[in-house]
Amino acid sequence: MQPYELIKAKRDGGKLDPSDIQAFIQAYTAGTVADYQMAAMCMAIFFKGLDSRELGAWARAMLHSGEVLDLSDTPAIKVDKHSTGGVGDKVSLSLAPLAAACGVPVPMISGRGLGHTGGTLDKLESIPGFNVNLSTADYRRLVREVGCCLIGQTAQVAPADKKLYALRDVTATVDCIPLIASSIMSKKLAEGIDALVLDVKVGSGAFMKTVDDARVLARTMIGLGAEMNRKVVALLTDMDQPLGRQVGNALEVREAVDMLRGDAPDDYTEITYALTAEMLVLGRKAATVEEARGMLRRSVEDGSAIKKLKEIVQSQGGDPRSIDDYSLLPTAKATADVVAPRDGFVTGIHTEGVGLAAVALGAGRQRVDSKIDPAVGFTLLKKVGDAVKQGEPVVQVHYNDAKPVEDVKARLLAAYRFGDRAPAARPLVLERLE
Amino acid sequence: MQPYELIKAKRDGGKLDPSDIQAFIQAYTAGTVADYQMAAMCMAIFFKGLDSRELGAWARAMLHSGEVLDLSDTPAIKVDKHSTGGVGDKVSLSLAPLAAACGVPVPMISGRGLGHTGGTLDKLESIPGFNVNLSTADYRRLVREVGCCLIGQTAQVAPADKKLYALRDVTATVDCIPLIASSIMSKKLAEGIDALVLDVKVGSGAFMKTVDDARVLARTMIGLGAEMNRKVVALLTDMDQPLGRQVGNALEVREAVDMLRGDAPDDYTEITYALTAEMLVLGRKAATVEEARGMLRRSVEDGSAIKKLKEIVQSQGGDPRSIDDYSLLPTAKATADVVAPRDGFVTGIHTEGVGLAAVALGAGRQRVDSKIDPAVGFTLLKKVGDAVKQGEPVVQVHYNDAKPVEDVKARLLAAYRFGDRAPAARPLVLERLE
Repeated sequence: MQPYELIKAKRDGGKLDPSDIQAFIQAYTAGTVADYQMAAMCMAIFFKGLDSRELGAWARAMLHSGEVLDLSDTPAIKVDKHSTGGVGDKVSLSLAPLAAACGVPVPMISGRGLGHTGGTLDKLESIPGFNVNLSTADYRRLVREVGCCLIGQTAQVAPADKKLYALRDVTATVDCIPLIASSIMSKKLAEGIDALVLDVKVGSGAFMKTVDDARVLARTMIGLGAEMNRKVVALLTDMDQPLGRQVGNALEVREAVDMLRGDAPDDYTEITYALTAEMLVLGRKAATVEEARGMLRRSVEDGSAIKKLKEIVQSQGGDPRSIDDYSLLPTAKATADVVAPRDGFVTGIHTEGVGLAAVALGAGRQRVDSKIDPAVGFTLLKKVGDAVKQGEPVVQVHYNDAKPVEDVKARLLAAYRFGDRAPAARPLVLERLE
Repeated sequence: MQPYELIKAKRDGGKLDPSDIQAFIQAYTAGTVADYQMAAMCMAIFFKGLDSRELGAWARAMLHSGEVLDLSDTPAIKVDKHSTGGVGDKVSLSLAPLAAACGVPVPMISGRGLGHTGGTLDKLESIPGFNVNLSTADYRRLVREVGCCLIGQTAQVAPADKKLYALRDVTATVDCIPLIASSIMSKKLAEGIDALVLDVKVGSGAFMKTVDDARVLARTMIGLGAEMNRKVVALLTDMDQPLGRQVGNALEVREAVDMLRGDAPDDYTEITYALTAEMLVLGRKAATVEEARGMLRRSVEDGSAIKKLKEIVQSQGGDPRSIDDYSLLPTAKATADVVAPRDGFVTGIHTEGVGLAAVALGAGRQRVDSKIDPAVGFTLLKKVGDAVKQGEPVVQVHYNDAKPVEDVKARLLAAYRFGDRAPAARPLVLERLE
C-alpha cells in the first residue's frame, strides 16, 4: 500500500481496493500515513466520492481501528439513536430513559457541543455529580443492570475517527457525505449496539440544509448499517427552528425532565416519541410504532420513565434529587428579554443564528477546549407561527456574565423574522427511511 | 485570512483574493498554515484550478517568500533556460557555455534528479571538484565575471516553493498545471533573470505526455512571465525517446563536451542550438534565430564554447583538465550489453522505462536522500529508426555494482520496441510559443 498511489487513484476517479483502504486507515491511525496525506485524500474523496464497497471498507477500517465493545452479556436487543445535531436538541435526555423504561437497553456514546450545535455530554454534566467518563467495565455493567449508560467517546473507541474528525474540521472536508456517514457509523457500531435509529436534522439549524442532502446521508448510513448487519431506521426531522423552548445545558435538562412528566412543548415531545417508538420496534418490545407510542405514553403516566431517569442519574454519580428540585441544577443569576420590534407573527427563526448566539453567551463552545457555563441559555417564549405584540418579550436570555448580553440580544433579534401572517406549519417528521 | 475559509472557497469553485493568497502562502512559509491545510488546498486547486489573477498572485507570493537575487551589477540582459525534465537531457551543460560564449550571461539555478528524470546538479557534480553550493555573493560575481554560474537552489530562494514541492510530491498534487507553472516561475524569476526560454518536453519520457498538455503549461508560464514583466519563449520538444545517446551523469558530461567540439548526436545538437538561439535573440546578441545559429556554430568551430566551459568549471572549483581527458571523470568498472531479440528496426523506446532503469542502476535517485553513482549509466547504441540484427547490442550498460544489472537489462529490453519497418521520424521541435 503506497499512500501516494492511493491518493492519486482516488483523485483520478479510480476505485480503491478494500484491503488498501484498510491498510491506509490503519497506517493513518499508527501515524505512518501523515495528516497531510489524509487531508489530500479527504479532499479527493470530497470530489470523487466513495462507492458503497469503498465506503463499507472505510467505515469498517475506522470501526476496527479501536475497541469494539462487547455487550453480549446483556441479551436483549440493544438500540441507540444518533442525531446529526441541532439547536435545542435534548431528545437523547428523554429518549434514553423512555426506551430503557420500556425494556430496550440503550448503550449511548455521545459527543460535546461544537460549532452552533449543543452536545448531550455537556447537558448531562449540568446535573450535579453526573459522570460521563466511565470505564468500559462500568459501561457494560450499567447497560446490563440499569438498561442505559450515557458516556463520552473513549480513546479506545474508533481512534481513527477521532483523529480524522479533528483533521477534517481544519481542512474544509467536514461536509462530505461518505466521510460523515462513515464517521457516525464507525463510532456508533463500536458501542456494541444491535440496531440504530437515526435522526437526520434538516433545515436552517442543521448541517444538512435540504431534504435531498439529508436523504442521501440517511440512505448512505442505512446502506452501511446493512453491510455490517445492523438494522438502521432513519427519520428526517425538522430543524428549521430550535426544538422545544429551552436552549442551554441545564435549561434543556429541565425541559427533558418536564417531558418525562408529560409537560413539554409538543414539537419536542412528538419528535422524541417518534424516534423512541422506532427503537421499541427495533428492540422487539412493540410490533408497531403505534403500539410503541402507547407504551411510551404509559411509561410517562405511571412514572416509570422519570424513575428510570433518576436511576440512570444515580448510577452515574449524579444527584437524583435535582430531577425533582430544579433549584439544585445550575441557574443563571439574571435574565434579560428580547422584545418584538412590531406587531404580527414570528415567520421564521434562523436556527444556526440562535445556536451561535448561545455560543456567544457561553452555553456552547467555539473551540474544542472552550469552557462552557451550564446555567446560561435562552427560553424561546415565541416560536414560528406565534402572534406577537410590539414590545412583547420573544426570548428570555439567562445569563451570569453581562458582557456578551447586548451582542447576544442583537443576534437573537437578527435571527427572528416577523411578518403579517403566520406561515403554514411544517411537518416535524419529514420522511422515514429504512 | 482564515485558512479554513480559503480552502473551502477554492473547493467550492470560488475565486481567491490576491491578498488572501499572499497571506496564505506567507503563513505556510512561516508554519502557521499547516502542511495538512496546504495539502487540502493543493488538492482543491487540482480540481478547481486557479484563474490568471489567482495564479499571478500565487506565483508572486512564492517568489517573494524569499530572496529575489539582484544581478543588476551585470548590465547585459540575463537569460536562463528551464526544462520540464526528461531522460538524457544534458542540454544545460552545453547551452550555458554556448550562450555565455556568445555574450549572454546565464544565471542558472538547477535541481537534482528525482523520479525517472536526471538533474543538472548531479551531472555537474560528476566533474571532480565542481561545487554547486556557492554563496549569493559568489553567484553574483561569477555571472558578472564569467558570464555564467550554475548552482543549486539555496534556502533563501523561494522557500515556499521548496516546502510546497516536497509536500506535493507525497500528496499526489504534482501533476497540476497551475502548481507546476507557479513553482517553476517563482524559482526562475528569483534568480535575477530578465528573460527565460522554456523547454517543455513532450512524450513518453516527459511529465507532459501530450502536446495539448504541454501547450497549456507553456502558455500558463508565458502568461505568468508577462505579468511579471519577463519575456518568455517556449519550445515544445520531443521526449518520446532519450535525448542523445548517453544516459547517466558522467556519461552525459562527456556527450555535452563532445557537442561543444561539434561531435555529438544530431538530436541533442539540434535541440541545444534551437534553445540557445532563442536565448541569444532574447539577450539581443542576435536579431534572428538564424543569425544566432551562425554565432553558435562559430563558437564551436573557433573553440570559444569549450574555452567558456573550462572557465566555468575552473571558476566553480572543478578540474578543467577533465574536459580534455575523460579518464579524469568517474568511469564505471564494467559494461554489459542488451542485445536485439530479432532482426528489424527500433520502432519506439518507452523513455520513462529507460529513466527508471537508470534509477535502478544507481544513476538517479528514488528518494530525495538516495546516493547516486556518477559513473554508471547507458550508452544507447540504437535509437528509434535504427536497423538492428538479432543478437546485436542495442544498449551498453556501464556499471560498478553487478547486483542490479540483470534487472536493469530486463527493464531496458522491455522499454525497447522492435518492428519490421522504421517509423516516420518525429520532429524534434514540435511547436514554438511566445
